[in-house]
Amino acid sequence: MRIVDIIRKKRDAERLSREEIEAVVAGSVDGSLADYQLSALLMAIVLRGMDNEETAWLTSAMARSGDRLDLSDIPGPKVDKHSTGGVGDKTSLILTPLAAACGAIVPMMSGRGLGHTGGTLDKLEAIPGFTVDLDESRLRAGLRQVGCVIMGQTSTLAPADRKLYALRDVTATVESIPLITASIMSKKIAEGIDGLVLDVKVGRGAFMKTTESARALATQMVDAGAHAGVRTRALLTSMDAPLGRAVGNAIEVRECLETLRGRGPADLETLSVRLAAEMLGVAGLAAGAADAERRVRHALTSGAGLEKFREMVAFQGGDVRALDDERLLPIGPGRETITALRDGVVAEVDAEAIGRATVALGAGRAVVGADVDHAVGAMVHRRPGDVVSRGDPLVDLYYRGEEALSIACRLVAGAFVIADAAAAPAPLVLDVIERQG
Amino acid sequence: MRIVDIIRKKRDAERLSREEIEAVVAGSVDGSLADYQLSALLMAIVLRGMDNEETAWLTSAMARSGDRLDLSDIPGPKVDKHSTGGVGDKTSLILTPLAAACGAIVPMMSGRGLGHTGGTLDKLEAIPGFTVDLDESRLRAGLRQVGCVIMGQTSTLAPADRKLYALRDVTATVESIPLITASIMSKKIAEGIDGLVLDVKVGRGAFMKTTESARALATQMVDAGAHAGVRTRALLTSMDAPLGRAVGNAIEVRECLETLRGRGPADLETLSVRLAAEMLGVAGLAAGAADAERRVRHALTSGAGLEKFREMVAFQGGDVRALDDERLLPIGPGRETITALRDGVVAEVDAEAIGRATVALGAGRAVVGADVDHAVGAMVHRRPGDVVSRGDPLVDLYYRGEEALSIACRLVAGAFVIADAAAAPAPLVLDVIERQG
Repeated sequence: MRIVDIIRKKRDAERLSREEIEAVVAGSVDGSLADYQLSALLMAIVLRGMDNEETAWLTSAMARSGDRLDLSDIPGPKVDKHSTGGVGDKTSLILTPLAAACGAIVPMMSGRGLGHTGGTLDKLEAIPGFTVDLDESRLRAGLRQVGCVIMGQTSTLAPADRKLYALRDVTATVESIPLITASIMSKKIAEGIDGLVLDVKVGRGAFMKTTESARALATQMVDAGAHAGVRTRALLTSMDAPLGRAVGNAIEVRECLETLRGRGPADLETLSVRLAAEMLGVAGLAAGAADAERRVRHALTSGAGLEKFREMVAFQGGDVRALDDERLLPIGPGRETITALRDGVVAEVDAEAIGRATVALGAGRAVVGADVDHAVGAMVHRRPGDVVSRGDPLVDLYYRGEEALSIACRLVAGAFVIADAAAAPAPLVLDVIERQG
Repeated sequence: MRIVDIIRKKRDAERLSREEIEAVVAGSVDGSLADYQLSALLMAIVLRGMDNEETAWLTSAMARSGDRLDLSDIPGPKVDKHSTGGVGDKTSLILTPLAAACGAIVPMMSGRGLGHTGGTLDKLEAIPGFTVDLDESRLRAGLRQVGCVIMGQTSTLAPADRKLYALRDVTATVESIPLITASIMSKKIAEGIDGLVLDVKVGRGAFMKTTESARALATQMVDAGAHAGVRTRALLTSMDAPLGRAVGNAIEVRECLETLRGRGPADLETLSVRLAAEMLGVAGLAAGAADAERRVRHALTSGAGLEKFREMVAFQGGDVRALDDERLLPIGPGRETITALRDGVVAEVDAEAIGRATVALGAGRAVVGADVDHAVGAMVHRRPGDVVSRGDPLVDLYYRGEEALSIACRLVAGAFVIADAAAAPAPLVLDVIERQG
């Protein structure tokens, strides 16, 4: 099996065999496959595609390229959630303790923010002392003691993904549904989980701009999960406007705590509860959807979810006093309010523009490895469909420098469309994708 | 201008600018562009294409990537011919001295055989002592003294092509009309010629299997030549059956000598004369097509072409006695005759199968750098349209080993289709492509 023949097949839109795909993944990790051959193949995959079976083979080969955690000695169903990334998307901090409070074991491995979308790890690090760097033994201890952790990817899982991703990033081969699927799912499969819920964001603030592309991605991910023996369900959810009201790091943690106290924004609470209920579903912990939702709601209203979050923060070295004293989650130091310029109805709040404004403030990063400022961010007071009068506050920006502020103000001002009338906003959950049969 | 953005543009089927293409060529030569980025871009070009203007820019940038010969101090129009490669295609050895005998200056740089097609340099090296390794000063001396040379590419011309070709060969990015155009034309333009005739082969023995693809290649090459100020004309010529009767090295040189003596096969003589006449045309050495053909025919019948060939062989160190004594151009040692198994009319002689048979005998090479055996080869006695009786000799194979012979026999037997009747063979010259206006 010569690599140049494998490249030629994919170039000519032929289907690769399982053996060919496994040879490529093995060669990319052991170094026998040259980077220039790998990148030519990646470009051919971007332009020619891979069918669901090829994608599942690629995913499995990448999942097996390093260690695969064996969590079978820890009692209870292991389940995780992954989001393709949105603005204000902070559900992980809410649903992880809710699902764990309902008996799920959640070994969540998350990422950092890049571009206009934030990252769960950056948000959690706004809590003083919180560490996301756990090794396998601490992960196991956390799952046994608490039932959940939220941590960074360990370096021994799916090394083929790191290799491929580094190459894709510099060769314009990131934007490919099969390659995105394999990248996300190989890491999740290597976690040793039994079930997985995917939150595939659709809309102007998401990577997938159309329902069709989101559905294609969701279908390939669900198939790849099933192929690897992981019960996988995907929700297509709307990401035109930011999720919830807070966008940033400390400000999002504050909103999560409010939500775990039952006082969060309706959209954020609804989606977090729904995703946690889906996690119970794939974990086999509920007798149907209604039962799952009832259990999660009970964990929310009883305070069990907040208590589980407190346990997780304590286990991961965070200062639990921050959960009750907002001064330990500082925002600011400056605050600037953007107001409505006319009476009307909010027709649009462009999530991507809001996301880019918070990156400009310093809450996110444009390049991998940059620092983030946990205190800055945005509080979005108005959502699509809200009636506003001229002068009403639309957004509060929490900022540190005037220059960053002026960029952010321009972006935020351009994010709002106020009209005489507006269509009803899209529903939050657009579709559910599961494997048939 | 970031390379990843250039790759992304071509991936998304956008047109690259002249500046972007020049940056890529410069970066590939100075090493600032990583091989893995270059190969991703090459694959995007293979799958997305380049228009004629992009191709001309690429060609010019590659031609300027190293030295460009300045032959303006040598009197007379400098003109060359390039063939895209066929089986039995030996016209260079005939038309070069014919055109030079008519006043053209021919600094022909040729290649070696690879795959089922032979190479001009390999054939000439069948003449004892003949060297194809000339440096620039010997090239100049040959053009002044003789009027023509046939030599290998010098290493200082178009280094970007060597870099790109090496990468294309191992990344399945060879098969691209824009990249083939730029590779061929950049080297020719760097020769410092005024005019160029292209013989674009079409058919089962050629790289281009259809008239459409051959016409597309010819059009891009003609445009790229015109863009660089080289008068360029392309002929689409048929390559279903071998050209002439001889396929190999020494055996082809023998046939060229026969042709220069006016006793060659009709198809080979016709095409060689036509191409030489076209060279006079682009060189401005004739008053129209009829005059050009008349001049070339005169050089053939007068023996001036043979005399010019003799001068060139002498200048390049070859033993001129070989031109009169076939024992100095040995073929064999073994000979095996393949005969017709039935009465009928020859409907097909598959040039590619004949070419692969001679490679199997050792006359060609499957990989770059391998040696060739000058003595082995094939003499094809029958052409499409010939009437044959059972037992008539179809091909004589000249071989050195029994194992190679048995492979070659199978290939040759499969190359012939003998039927009760056959359609008339395709004309030799299918079309002429010139730039309009």
